[in-house]
Amino acid sequence: MPSTHIHRIRVRYCETDRMGLAHHGSYVAWLEEARTEWMRTLGRTYLKMEDDGELLVVADMHIRYLKPATFDDVLQVELRAVERSKVAITIGYELTREPCGTRIASATTKLACVGKDGRIRRLPRELA
Amino acid sequence: MPSTHIHRIRVRYCETDRMGLAHHGSYVAWLEEARTEWMRTLGRTYLKMEDDGELLVVADMHIRYLKPATFDDVLQVELRAVERSKVAITIGYELTREPCGTRIASATTKLACVGKDGRIRRLPRELA
Amino acid sequence: MPSTHIHRIRVRYCETDRMGLAHHGSYVAWLEEARTEWMRTLGRTYLKMEDDGELLVVADMHIRYLKPATFDDVLQVELRAVERSKVAITIGYELTREPCGTRIASATTKLACVGKDGRIRRLPRELA
Amino acid sequence: MPSTHIHRIRVRYCETDRMGLAHHGSYVAWLEEARTEWMRTLGRTYLKMEDDGELLVVADMHIRYLKPATFDDVLQVELRAVERSKVAITIGYELTREPCGTRIASATTKLACVGKDGRIRRLPRELA
Repeated sequence: MPSTHIHRIRVRYCETDRMGLAHHGSYVAWLEEARTEWMRTLGRTYLKMEDDGELLVVADMHIRYLKPATFDDVLQVELRAVERSKVAITIGYELTREPCGTRIASATTKLACVGKDGRIRRLPRELA
Repeated sequence: MPSTHIHRIRVRYCETDRMGLAHHGSYVAWLEEARTEWMRTLGRTYLKMEDDGELLVVADMHIRYLKPATFDDVLQVELRAVERSKVAITIGYELTREPCGTRIASATTKLACVGKDGRIRRLPRELA
Repeated sequence: MPSTHIHRIRVRYCETDRMGLAHHGSYVAWLEEARTEWMRTLGRTYLKMEDDGELLVVADMHIRYLKPATFDDVLQVELRAVERSKVAITIGYELTREPCGTRIASATTKLACVGKDGRIRRLPRELA
Repeated sequence: MPSTHIHRIRVRYCETDRMGLAHHGSYVAWLEEARTEWMRTLGRTYLKMEDDGELLVVADMHIRYLKPATFDDVLQVELRAVERSKVAITIGYELTREPCGTRIASATTKLACVGKDGRIRRLPRELA
């Protein structure tokens, strides 16, 4: 498993709020998109994992907002696995603004693997 | 079937954008919430309809934006059935700001009924 | 300042995802709506605070997902101030499903006060 | 002004709903992202237009949903100007799924130009 993955997103207009900045809830979608693309590079898409009955549910999410992002910004999301058990993986994220490299946010999400029946099961082999 | 239904929503902060106003995409959720509450008054919730295999998919949506709405506004959504066939219903919506009554938007959504297999089927009896 | 505030939300259809449950990002809007309503009870709306140049920006958000929520669920959001400094307040939230009281999630958000110029300033007196 | 522009998006997980498909409201963000990228190719970004006091507000949006889209689909959004006046432009969109070319949706949005004071003004020269 590659130790890190880098994904880029561009802030959408609808992701801003009346403060003129990206809304703090918009980051959730960016983290999700970044880990979806990371999984694609690991040999099986997350779509396929779900079809195979290996669902990843978010058990914990922590985001620290350092500097604001705004409309049309290009953000780099660098992610890495920071902790693993048999049934869960915690992914860490660092968000920086391109091209200047300003740190925008850091985050972690803990994902637990469950079957279609909702029961905890082992992590997909690509993440284990 | 009652001829009209009135529902109220309050504009959320996250529903605004950097222009300082409610984002045009936010209205979609308000229309959906209004028709969900309307169906509740008809005797079977939309949740129950889905469990019963009667899914309503949006086939057409048209929104005319008349005046801006903004954070914390209370909007009245008045809806009525404006057209029906055996398999589809078109709902019309008028959005006004409270308490002044300023017209904010008008909209229509055409909902087609499908089964869990995705095939067109007759509208639920509550809507027919 | 009241020690706790209770707000209720109903899960919107658009807040669910293909797993059939409320998406983990949807909770962000519920927390925000709950604290907006809490502030309303404190004597000045958050809209007015922003007009007065007292903006609250989210510096940190942490959500622990305990049990899934789904479409049409009514959730109780109970919030309380759990920590305060001169310029920031941390709010804790407990989400339970009604009427059964099942714990759905717990969360904290740290809000820092800034002026229209983006500079840190003292918390609004209602929150201090 | 180029007669058409093509933009690609990938359906995010958070853009789906409990029906297992992309939520009808998610399309709004895709149309917006497509026209933002189109404007970028015209020589001035929409961000710059707003900074210059030329804001585009959506006056009318009409989406026809033809076939469902789902998580991880890549959609091509082809847009073109279909009508113009001195103060407004109507953009037409055709959404197809890649690589098969299945038609997913067609849409129009009418954008009116306003200044920072909210008053109607002439379209930016790039769109006129």
